[in-house]
Amino acid sequence: MIQADFVAIVMGSFLPKTINRLIEEFSRLPGIGPKSAQRLTMHLLHSPESRVKELSDAVSKLKNGLQFCNICWNISENPQCGICADPRRNHNLICVVEEILDVVAIEKTQEYKGVYHVLHGALSPVEGIGPEQLKINALMNRLEKMDEESAGAGVGGIEIILATNPGLEGETTAMYLMRLLKIHGHKITRIARGLPVGGDLDYADELTLTKALEGRMEYS
Amino acid sequence: MIQADFVAIVMGSFLPKTINRLIEEFSRLPGIGPKSAQRLTMHLLHSPESRVKELSDAVSKLKNGLQFCNICWNISENPQCGICADPRRNHNLICVVEEILDVVAIEKTQEYKGVYHVLHGALSPVEGIGPEQLKINALMNRLEKMDEESAGAGVGGIEIILATNPGLEGETTAMYLMRLLKIHGHKITRIARGLPVGGDLDYADELTLTKALEGRMEYS
Repeated sequence: MIQADFVAIVMGSFLPKTINRLIEEFSRLPGIGPKSAQRLTMHLLHSPESRVKELSDAVSKLKNGLQFCNICWNISENPQCGICADPRRNHNLICVVEEILDVVAIEKTQEYKGVYHVLHGALSPVEGIGPEQLKINALMNRLEKMDEESAGAGVGGIEIILATNPGLEGETTAMYLMRLLKIHGHKITRIARGLPVGGDLDYADELTLTKALEGRMEYS
Repeated sequence: MIQADFVAIVMGSFLPKTINRLIEEFSRLPGIGPKSAQRLTMHLLHSPESRVKELSDAVSKLKNGLQFCNICWNISENPQCGICADPRRNHNLICVVEEILDVVAIEKTQEYKGVYHVLHGALSPVEGIGPEQLKINALMNRLEKMDEESAGAGVGGIEIILATNPGLEGETTAMYLMRLLKIHGHKITRIARGLPVGGDLDYADELTLTKALEGRMEYS
Protein backbone atom coordinates (compact mmCIF):
# COMPACT_ATOMS: atom_id res chain seq x y z
CA MET A 1 0.00 0.00 0.00
CA ILE A 2 1.67 3.16 -1.21
CA GLN A 3 -0.68 5.32 0.80
CA ALA A 4 -0.11 3.47 4.06
CA ASP A 5 3.67 3.72 3.64
CA PHE A 6 3.26 7.37 2.88
CA VAL A 7 1.31 7.87 6.10
CA ALA A 8 3.98 6.03 8.07
CA ILE A 9 6.72 8.20 6.61
CA VAL A 10 4.82 11.46 6.94
CA MET A 11 3.52 10.92 10.45
CA GLY A 12 6.54 8.88 11.50
CA SER A 13 7.40 8.77 15.15
CA PHE A 14 5.62 12.01 16.04
CA LEU A 15 2.35 10.35 17.01
CA PRO A 16 1.44 7.30 19.09
CA LYS A 17 1.03 4.00 17.21
CA THR A 18 -2.73 3.68 17.70
CA ILE A 19 -3.27 7.07 16.09
CA ASN A 20 -1.04 6.29 13.11
CA ARG A 21 -2.81 3.00 12.68
CA LEU A 22 -6.25 4.60 12.40
CA ILE A 23 -4.92 7.29 10.04
CA GLU A 24 -3.59 4.43 7.88
CA GLU A 25 -6.90 2.59 7.93
CA PHE A 26 -8.91 5.70 7.08
CA SER A 27 -6.61 6.63 4.20
CA ARG A 28 -7.20 3.20 2.65
CA LEU A 29 -10.86 4.11 2.12
CA PRO A 30 -11.83 5.56 -1.27
CA GLY A 31 -11.81 9.35 -1.50
CA ILE A 32 -10.04 9.82 1.83
CA GLY A 33 -6.50 11.19 1.52
CA PRO A 34 -3.87 11.34 4.28
CA LYS A 35 -5.03 14.83 5.35
CA SER A 36 -8.69 13.85 5.71
CA ALA A 37 -7.63 10.68 7.50
CA GLN A 38 -5.67 12.79 10.00
CA ARG A 39 -8.62 15.12 10.51
CA LEU A 40 -11.06 12.23 11.05
CA THR A 41 -8.72 10.55 13.53
CA MET A 42 -8.22 13.77 15.50
CA HIS A 43 -11.98 14.27 15.54
CA LEU A 44 -12.48 10.83 17.07
CA LEU A 45 -9.66 11.45 19.53
CA HIS A 46 -11.61 14.43 20.85
CA SER A 47 -14.96 12.58 20.77
CA PRO A 48 -16.38 10.84 23.82
CA GLU A 49 -15.51 7.16 24.22
CA SER A 50 -19.16 6.18 23.54
CA ARG A 51 -19.17 7.79 20.07
CA VAL A 52 -15.92 6.00 19.17
CA LYS A 53 -17.40 2.72 20.32
CA GLU A 54 -20.56 3.27 18.27
CA LEU A 55 -18.51 3.74 15.10
CA SER A 56 -16.30 0.74 15.79
CA ASP A 57 -19.42 -1.39 16.50
CA ALA A 58 -21.18 -0.21 13.38
CA VAL A 59 -18.14 -1.16 11.28
CA SER A 60 -17.64 -4.56 12.89
CA LYS A 61 -21.34 -5.47 12.66
CA LEU A 62 -21.77 -4.21 9.09
CA LYS A 63 -21.92 -7.66 7.53
CA ASN A 64 -23.74 -9.36 10.42
CA GLY A 65 -26.57 -11.43 9.02
CA LEU A 66 -26.23 -9.92 5.57
CA GLN A 67 -26.23 -11.89 2.37
CA PHE A 68 -26.94 -11.34 -1.29
CA CYS A 69 -30.45 -12.06 -2.50
CA ASN A 70 -30.24 -15.35 -4.42
CA ILE A 71 -32.51 -13.98 -7.14
CA CYS A 72 -31.40 -10.41 -7.85
CA TRP A 73 -28.08 -10.11 -5.93
CA ASN A 74 -29.26 -7.09 -3.97
CA ILE A 75 -28.04 -7.01 -0.36
CA SER A 76 -30.52 -8.59 2.04
CA GLU A 77 -31.15 -9.95 5.52
CA ASN A 78 -32.85 -13.02 4.03
CA PRO A 79 -32.10 -15.46 1.20
CA GLN A 80 -34.57 -13.39 -0.84
CA CYS A 81 -34.60 -9.60 -0.61
CA GLY A 82 -37.74 -7.67 0.31
CA ILE A 83 -38.32 -6.64 -3.28
CA CYS A 84 -38.02 -10.13 -4.79
CA ALA A 85 -40.23 -11.54 -2.01
CA ASP A 86 -42.96 -8.93 -2.57
CA PRO A 87 -45.90 -10.44 -4.55
CA ARG A 88 -47.20 -6.94 -5.43
CA ARG A 89 -44.11 -6.34 -7.57
CA ASN A 90 -44.12 -7.05 -11.29
CA HIS A 91 -41.62 -9.90 -11.51
CA ASN A 92 -41.63 -9.82 -15.32
CA LEU A 93 -40.10 -6.34 -15.33
CA ILE A 94 -36.40 -6.57 -14.47
CA CYS A 95 -34.26 -3.48 -14.05
CA VAL A 96 -30.56 -4.29 -14.46
CA VAL A 97 -28.30 -1.93 -12.44
CA GLU A 98 -24.60 -1.76 -11.61
CA GLU A 99 -24.71 -1.28 -7.84
CA ILE A 100 -26.86 -1.73 -4.73
CA LEU A 101 -27.06 2.06 -4.34
CA ASP A 102 -28.66 2.26 -7.80
CA VAL A 103 -31.53 0.15 -6.43
CA VAL A 104 -31.85 2.61 -3.52
CA ALA A 105 -31.88 5.54 -5.96
CA ILE A 106 -34.64 4.02 -8.12
CA GLU A 107 -36.69 2.90 -5.09
CA LYS A 108 -36.66 6.48 -3.82
CA THR A 109 -38.63 7.58 -6.88
CA GLN A 110 -41.49 5.33 -5.62
CA GLU A 111 -42.50 4.99 -9.28
CA TYR A 112 -40.91 1.70 -10.24
CA LYS A 113 -42.95 -1.42 -9.51
CA GLY A 114 -40.76 -4.07 -11.10
CA VAL A 115 -37.81 -6.02 -9.69
CA TYR A 116 -34.02 -5.67 -10.08
CA HIS A 117 -30.84 -7.42 -11.02
CA VAL A 118 -27.61 -6.07 -9.49
CA LEU A 119 -24.52 -6.70 -11.64
CA HIS A 120 -22.04 -5.52 -8.96
CA GLY A 121 -20.00 -3.47 -11.40
CA ALA A 122 -19.67 -2.66 -15.07
CA LEU A 123 -17.46 -4.06 -17.82
CA SER A 124 -14.08 -2.35 -17.75
CA PRO A 125 -11.17 -3.75 -19.78
CA VAL A 126 -8.89 -1.13 -18.17
CA GLU A 127 -9.62 -2.42 -14.67
CA GLY A 128 -9.72 -6.02 -15.88
CA ILE A 129 -13.43 -6.47 -15.20
CA GLY A 130 -14.95 -8.88 -17.69
CA PRO A 131 -18.40 -10.52 -17.87
CA GLU A 132 -17.35 -13.30 -15.48
CA GLN A 133 -16.67 -10.76 -12.69
CA LEU A 134 -20.26 -9.49 -12.94
CA LYS A 135 -23.53 -11.22 -12.10
CA ILE A 136 -24.27 -11.72 -15.79
CA ASN A 137 -24.36 -15.52 -15.68
CA ALA A 138 -26.75 -15.25 -12.75
CA LEU A 139 -28.99 -13.05 -14.90
CA MET A 140 -28.93 -15.51 -17.79
CA ASN A 141 -29.80 -18.41 -15.47
CA ARG A 142 -32.56 -16.37 -13.89
CA LEU A 143 -34.09 -15.59 -17.28
CA GLU A 144 -33.81 -19.18 -18.48
CA LYS A 145 -35.61 -20.34 -15.34
CA MET A 146 -38.33 -17.73 -15.92
CA ASP A 147 -38.69 -18.87 -19.55
CA GLU A 148 -39.15 -22.48 -18.44
CA GLU A 149 -41.73 -21.52 -15.83
CA SER A 150 -43.66 -19.21 -18.15
CA ALA A 151 -43.62 -21.85 -20.90
CA GLY A 152 -45.61 -24.07 -18.57
CA ALA A 153 -47.84 -21.32 -17.13
CA GLY A 154 -48.17 -19.33 -20.32
CA VAL A 155 -47.27 -15.97 -18.74
CA GLY A 156 -44.37 -14.47 -20.72
CA GLY A 157 -43.98 -10.80 -21.66
CA ILE A 158 -40.68 -10.18 -19.87
CA GLU A 159 -39.12 -6.70 -20.18
CA ILE A 160 -35.50 -6.07 -19.23
CA ILE A 161 -34.59 -2.43 -18.54
CA LEU A 162 -30.86 -1.81 -18.88
CA ALA A 163 -30.19 0.88 -16.27
CA THR A 164 -26.41 0.88 -16.14
CA ASN A 165 -24.76 4.31 -15.84
CA PRO A 166 -24.71 6.48 -18.97
CA GLY A 167 -20.89 6.58 -19.06
CA LEU A 168 -18.40 4.63 -21.16
CA GLU A 169 -18.39 1.51 -18.96
CA GLY A 170 -22.12 1.53 -18.35
CA GLU A 171 -22.86 1.91 -22.07
CA THR A 172 -20.44 -0.88 -22.93
CA THR A 173 -22.12 -3.12 -20.38
CA ALA A 174 -25.59 -2.24 -21.69
CA MET A 175 -24.49 -2.93 -25.26
CA TYR A 176 -22.97 -6.27 -24.24
CA LEU A 177 -26.12 -7.31 -22.36
CA MET A 178 -28.36 -6.17 -25.22
CA ARG A 179 -26.55 -8.45 -27.67
CA LEU A 180 -26.53 -11.34 -25.22
CA LEU A 181 -30.23 -11.03 -24.33
CA LYS A 182 -31.53 -10.35 -27.85
CA ILE A 183 -31.42 -14.03 -28.76
CA HIS A 184 -33.89 -14.81 -25.95
CA GLY A 185 -36.52 -12.68 -27.66
CA HIS A 186 -37.36 -10.59 -24.57
CA LYS A 187 -38.19 -6.90 -24.76
CA ILE A 188 -35.01 -4.99 -23.95
CA THR A 189 -35.04 -1.26 -23.14
CA ARG A 190 -32.44 1.29 -22.09
CA ILE A 191 -33.15 4.13 -19.63
CA ALA A 192 -33.45 7.51 -21.35
CA ARG A 193 -30.42 9.74 -21.62
CA GLY A 194 -31.16 13.44 -21.96
CA LEU A 195 -31.18 16.73 -20.13
CA PRO A 196 -31.54 16.40 -16.35
CA VAL A 197 -34.68 18.02 -14.93
CA GLY A 198 -33.83 21.61 -13.98
CA GLY A 199 -30.81 21.42 -16.28
CA ASP A 200 -29.77 24.09 -18.74
CA LEU A 201 -29.55 23.42 -22.48
CA ASP A 202 -26.77 25.97 -22.66
CA TYR A 203 -24.60 24.00 -20.26
CA ALA A 204 -25.30 20.50 -21.55
CA ASP A 205 -22.45 18.65 -23.23
CA GLU A 206 -22.73 17.60 -26.90
CA LEU A 207 -23.26 13.90 -26.15
CA THR A 208 -26.11 14.57 -23.73
CA LEU A 209 -27.74 16.95 -26.23
CA THR A 210 -27.36 14.40 -29.03
CA LYS A 211 -28.99 11.75 -26.83
CA ALA A 212 -31.73 14.19 -25.83
CA LEU A 213 -32.52 14.89 -29.48
CA GLU A 214 -32.38 11.21 -30.46
CA GLY A 215 -34.69 10.31 -27.62
CA ARG A 216 -37.27 13.04 -28.30
CA MET A 217 -40.88 12.03 -27.71
CA GLU A 218 -44.04 13.17 -29.47
CA TYR A 219 -46.74 14.93 -27.49
CA SER A 220 -49.65 12.57 -27.21
CA MET B 1 -28.90 14.66 14.97
CA ILE B 2 -30.33 16.23 11.84
CA GLN B 3 -27.91 14.35 9.59
CA ALA B 4 -28.70 10.96 11.10
CA ASP B 5 -32.45 11.58 10.71
CA PHE B 6 -31.80 12.67 7.16
CA VAL B 7 -29.97 9.42 6.44
CA ALA B 8 -32.80 7.41 7.98
CA ILE B 9 -35.38 9.21 5.83
CA VAL B 10 -33.34 9.08 2.65
CA MET B 11 -32.21 5.49 2.91
CA GLY B 12 -35.37 4.39 4.71
CA SER B 13 -36.39 0.79 4.47
CA PHE B 14 -34.50 0.11 1.25
CA LEU B 15 -31.35 -1.15 2.94
CA PRO B 16 -30.66 -3.53 5.84
CA LYS B 17 -30.33 -1.96 9.31
CA THR B 18 -26.60 -2.64 9.75
CA ILE B 19 -25.84 -0.77 6.52
CA ASN B 20 -27.99 2.22 7.47
CA ARG B 21 -26.34 2.29 10.88
CA LEU B 22 -22.82 2.55 9.42
CA ILE B 23 -23.94 5.19 6.91
CA GLU B 24 -25.31 7.16 9.87
CA GLU B 25 -22.07 6.80 11.84
CA PHE B 26 -19.90 7.82 8.90
CA SER B 27 -22.03 10.87 8.12
CA ARG B 28 -21.55 12.09 11.69
CA LEU B 29 -17.83 12.53 10.97
CA PRO B 30 -16.65 15.98 9.87
CA GLY B 31 -16.49 16.53 6.12
CA ILE B 32 -18.39 13.35 5.29
CA GLY B 33 -21.85 13.94 3.83
CA PRO B 34 -24.57 11.32 3.32
CA LYS B 35 -23.31 10.52 -0.21
CA SER B 36 -19.70 9.90 0.89
CA ALA B 37 -20.99 7.88 3.85
CA GLN B 38 -22.94 5.68 1.43
CA ARG B 39 -19.91 5.23 -0.79
CA LEU B 40 -17.63 4.34 2.14
CA THR B 41 -20.15 1.83 3.50
CA MET B 42 -20.58 0.18 0.10
CA HIS B 43 -16.81 -0.01 -0.26
CA LEU B 44 -16.53 -1.85 3.08
CA LEU B 45 -19.43 -4.11 2.12
CA HIS B 46 -17.42 -5.25 -0.89
CA SER B 47 -14.15 -5.47 1.09
CA PRO B 48 -12.93 -8.74 2.63
CA GLU B 49 -13.95 -9.40 6.24
CA SER B 50 -10.34 -8.94 7.39
CA ARG B 51 -10.13 -5.36 6.10
CA VAL B 52 -13.41 -4.48 7.82
CA LYS B 53 -12.12 -5.99 11.06
CA GLU B 54 -8.85 -4.02 10.81
CA LEU B 55 -10.75 -0.74 10.54
CA SER B 56 -13.10 -1.60 13.39
CA ASP B 57 -10.12 -2.62 15.55
CA ALA B 58 -8.17 0.53 14.73
CA VAL B 59 -11.16 2.65 15.74
CA SER B 60 -11.88 0.77 18.96
CA LYS B 61 -8.22 0.77 20.04
CA LEU B 62 -7.59 4.40 19.11
CA LYS B 63 -7.55 5.65 22.69
CA ASN B 64 -5.91 2.55 24.21
CA GLY B 65 -3.14 3.64 26.52
CA LEU B 66 -3.29 7.21 25.28
CA GLN B 67 -3.29 10.24 27.54
CA PHE B 68 -2.43 13.90 27.32
CA CYS B 69 1.10 14.91 28.30
CA ASN B 70 0.77 16.56 31.72
CA ILE B 71 3.20 19.31 30.69
CA CYS B 72 2.31 20.33 27.14
CA TRP B 73 -1.06 18.57 26.53
CA ASN B 74 0.22 16.83 23.42
CA ILE B 75 -1.13 13.28 22.98
CA SER B 76 1.18 10.68 24.47
CA GLU B 77 1.61 7.08 25.56
CA ASN B 78 3.20 8.23 28.83
CA PRO B 79 2.43 10.89 31.46
CA GLN B 80 5.07 12.99 29.68
CA CYS B 81 5.28 13.06 25.89
CA GLY B 82 8.50 12.18 24.05
CA ILE B 83 9.26 15.82 23.36
CA CYS B 84 8.84 17.03 26.95
CA ALA B 85 10.85 14.07 28.23
CA ASP B 86 13.74 14.73 25.81
CA PRO B 87 16.66 16.46 27.61
CA ARG B 88 18.17 17.58 24.28
CA ARG B 89 15.20 19.87 23.71
CA ASN B 90 15.30 23.52 24.73
CA HIS B 91 12.67 23.61 27.46
CA ASN B 92 12.82 27.40 27.69
CA LEU B 93 11.47 27.76 24.14
CA ILE B 94 7.75 27.03 24.12
CA CYS B 95 5.75 26.97 20.89
CA VAL B 96 2.03 27.44 21.55
CA VAL B 97 -0.16 25.71 18.95
CA GLU B 98 -3.87 25.04 18.51
CA GLU B 99 -3.88 21.34 17.73
CA ILE B 100 -1.87 18.12 18.03
CA LEU B 101 -1.50 18.04 14.24
CA ASP B 102 0.26 21.42 14.40
CA VAL B 103 2.96 19.77 16.53
CA VAL B 104 3.30 17.07 13.86
CA ALA B 105 3.56 19.74 11.14
CA ILE B 106 6.32 21.65 12.96
CA GLU B 107 8.20 18.46 13.92
CA LYS B 108 8.30 17.50 10.25
CA THR B 109 10.46 20.55 9.51
CA GLN B 110 13.14 19.00 11.79
CA GLU B 111 14.26 22.57 12.49
CA TYR B 112 12.52 23.32 15.77
CA LYS B 113 14.38 22.26 18.91
CA GLY B 114 12.12 23.72 21.60
CA VAL B 115 9.01 22.28 23.25
CA TYR B 116 5.27 22.83 22.73
CA HIS B 117 2.03 23.74 24.40
CA VAL B 118 -1.17 22.48 22.77
CA LEU B 119 -4.21 24.68 23.43
CA HIS B 120 -6.73 22.21 21.93
CA GLY B 121 -8.55 24.88 19.98
CA ALA B 122 -8.73 28.62 19.45
CA LEU B 123 -10.91 31.33 20.95
CA SER B 124 -14.19 31.54 19.08
CA PRO B 125 -17.10 33.54 20.49
CA VAL B 126 -19.31 32.25 17.64
CA GLU B 127 -18.76 28.63 18.67
CA GLY B 128 -18.82 29.53 22.38
CA ILE B 129 -15.15 28.69 22.94
CA GLY B 130 -13.67 30.93 25.64
CA PRO B 131 -10.31 30.81 27.44
CA GLU B 132 -11.59 28.26 29.96
CA GLN B 133 -12.23 25.71 27.16
CA LEU B 134 -8.58 25.91 26.09
CA LYS B 135 -5.44 24.82 27.92
CA ILE B 136 -4.58 28.42 28.76
CA ASN B 137 -4.71 27.99 32.53
CA ALA B 138 -2.41 25.01 32.15
CA LEU B 139 0.01 27.22 30.22
CA MET B 140 -0.07 29.92 32.94
CA ASN B 141 0.55 27.33 35.67
CA ARG B 142 3.37 25.80 33.64
CA LEU B 143 5.06 29.20 33.22
CA GLU B 144 4.63 30.10 36.90
CA LYS B 145 6.23 26.80 37.87
CA MET B 146 9.11 27.48 35.46
CA ASP B 147 9.52 30.98 36.91
CA GLU B 148 9.75 29.57 40.44
CA GLU B 149 12.28 26.95 39.40
CA SER B 150 14.41 29.36 37.41
CA ALA B 151 14.35 31.90 40.31
CA GLY B 152 16.11 29.24 42.35
CA ALA B 153 18.41 27.98 39.58
CA GLY B 154 18.96 31.35 37.92
CA VAL B 155 18.17 30.09 34.40
CA GLY B 156 15.43 32.28 32.93
CA GLY B 157 15.30 33.57 29.34
CA ILE B 158 12.00 31.94 28.39
CA GLU B 159 10.63 32.59 24.87
CA ILE B 160 7.04 31.87 23.98
CA ILE B 161 6.30 31.50 20.26
CA LEU B 162 2.61 32.02 19.48
CA ALA B 163 2.02 29.68 16.54
CA THR B 164 -1.77 29.70 16.35
CA ASN B 165 -3.24 29.75 12.84
CA PRO B 166 -3.06 33.05 10.92
CA GLY B 167 -6.87 33.30 10.64
CA LEU B 168 -9.41 35.30 12.63
CA GLU B 169 -9.65 32.88 15.55
CA GLY B 170 -5.94 32.12 15.69
CA GLU B 171 -5.04 35.83 15.63
CA THR B 172 -7.59 36.55 18.37
CA THR B 173 -6.12 33.76 20.49
CA ALA B 174 -2.56 35.00 19.88
CA MET B 175 -3.56 38.55 20.81
CA TYR B 176 -5.30 37.33 23.98
CA LEU B 177 -2.27 35.25 25.00
CA MET B 178 0.13 38.09 24.21
CA ARG B 179 -1.73 40.42 26.61
CA LEU B 180 -1.98 37.73 29.27
CA LEU B 181 1.68 36.73 29.07
CA LYS B 182 3.15 40.24 28.75
CA ILE B 183 2.86 40.83 32.49
CA HIS B 184 5.18 37.88 33.15
CA GLY B 185 7.99 39.66 31.32
CA HIS B 186 8.81 36.72 29.01
CA LYS B 187 9.85 37.19 25.41
CA ILE B 188 6.76 36.66 23.27
CA THR B 189 6.97 36.15 19.49
CA ARG B 190 4.47 35.43 16.73
CA ILE B 191 5.23 33.18 13.73
CA ALA B 192 5.77 35.16 10.51
CA ARG B 193 2.89 35.72 8.15
CA GLY B 194 3.83 36.30 4.54
CA LEU B 195 3.95 34.73 1.12
CA PRO B 196 4.18 30.93 1.15
CA VAL B 197 7.36 29.54 -0.42
CA GLY B 198 6.67 28.92 -4.10
CA GLY B 199 3.68 31.27 -3.90
CA ASP B 200 2.87 33.95 -6.41
CA LEU B 201 2.73 37.64 -5.47
CA ASP B 202 0.10 38.09 -8.14
CA TYR B 203 -2.25 35.64 -6.48
CA ALA B 204 -1.68 36.63 -2.84
CA ASP B 205 -4.58 38.27 -1.00
CA GLU B 206 -4.24 41.82 0.34
CA LEU B 207 -3.91 40.77 4.00
CA THR B 208 -1.09 38.33 3.28
CA LEU B 209 0.72 40.93 1.18
CA THR B 210 0.31 43.54 3.93
CA LYS B 211 1.73 41.09 6.48
CA ALA B 212 4.56 40.17 4.10
CA LEU B 213 5.49 43.83 3.74
CA GLU B 214 5.19 44.53 7.46
CA GLY B 215 7.35 41.52 8.27
CA ARG B 216 10.09 42.32 5.73
CA MET B 217 13.62 41.53 6.89
CA GLU B 218 16.89 43.24 6.06
CA TYR B 219 19.62 41.28 4.32
CA SER B 220 22.39 40.72 6.81
